[in-house]
Amino acid sequence: MDCIFCKIVSGEIPSVKVYEDDSAIAFMDINPLNDGHVLIIPKAHAATINEITQSDFVAVMSATHKLAAAVQKALNPEGINLMQLNGRAANQVVPHLHVHIVPRWSGDGLSICKWEPMAGNMEKIEDVAERIRSEVEN
Amino acid sequence: MDCIFCKIVSGEIPSVKVYEDDSAIAFMDINPLNDGHVLIIPKAHAATINEITQSDFVAVMSATHKLAAAVQKALNPEGINLMQLNGRAANQVVPHLHVHIVPRWSGDGLSICKWEPMAGNMEKIEDVAERIRSEVEN
Repeated sequence: MDCIFCKIVSGEIPSVKVYEDDSAIAFMDINPLNDGHVLIIPKAHAATINEITQSDFVAVMSATHKLAAAVQKALNPEGINLMQLNGRAANQVVPHLHVHIVPRWSGDGLSICKWEPMAGNMEKIEDVAERIRSEVEN
Repeated sequence: MDCIFCKIVSGEIPSVKVYEDDSAIAFMDINPLNDGHVLIIPKAHAATINEITQSDFVAVMSATHKLAAAVQKALNPEGINLMQLNGRAANQVVPHLHVHIVPRWSGDGLSICKWEPMAGNMEKIEDVAERIRSEVEN
């Protein structure tokens, strides 16, 4: 299957990984909306919430709970947006289920509707990833 | 505690409930962004993803997976947005953790940034709730 996230799972495409367990992985969004923008995905391919098994969905959300704690410790944001988009009509771009963790700060000017992919600074992303990675509890 | 969602859990404040299990309930948002806008909350009070236990978070997400299937069957949307906002800086309004299921249709003109609470038509909300309720698998 020609799925970019399946290729990230297999390692065929590199990613800045911050977490992995039997069912899920988490890695940095390289077009971050804010510092610490993390994506959590199931290892098994499923496009949407209506296609993924309940056990894989729960595994992704269990990982998300861990990552949210790590992001909080690493970056101390004032808020966190979780978003999970299903279908083109819901603005899903990559058709492999993924949860966005987007750290928020008051006055960050972030508008969820103005979601234009903009390449992040990879050095900064790697640095933030290391801080998050060190806070993940297994 | 003076929490509106705790009062919905206890029944002190009425709601249009569509699902209940030991740890979570789901009810219709009375200021819906679209038809079929459902909220899923834990019964035990927790303000945010960083305050809720992992088991309660997983229970809420397990219920969310069920409700997303029911919404899909009942309303056949072209997409579904899941959103879960933590903290004022992330636009959380009620400080009791909740997941939004927002059905989406192409060209629905819905902008997540223009999220103005607008009272829905209660008769229509009750009708949609009944359709969702009848599709929930236990």
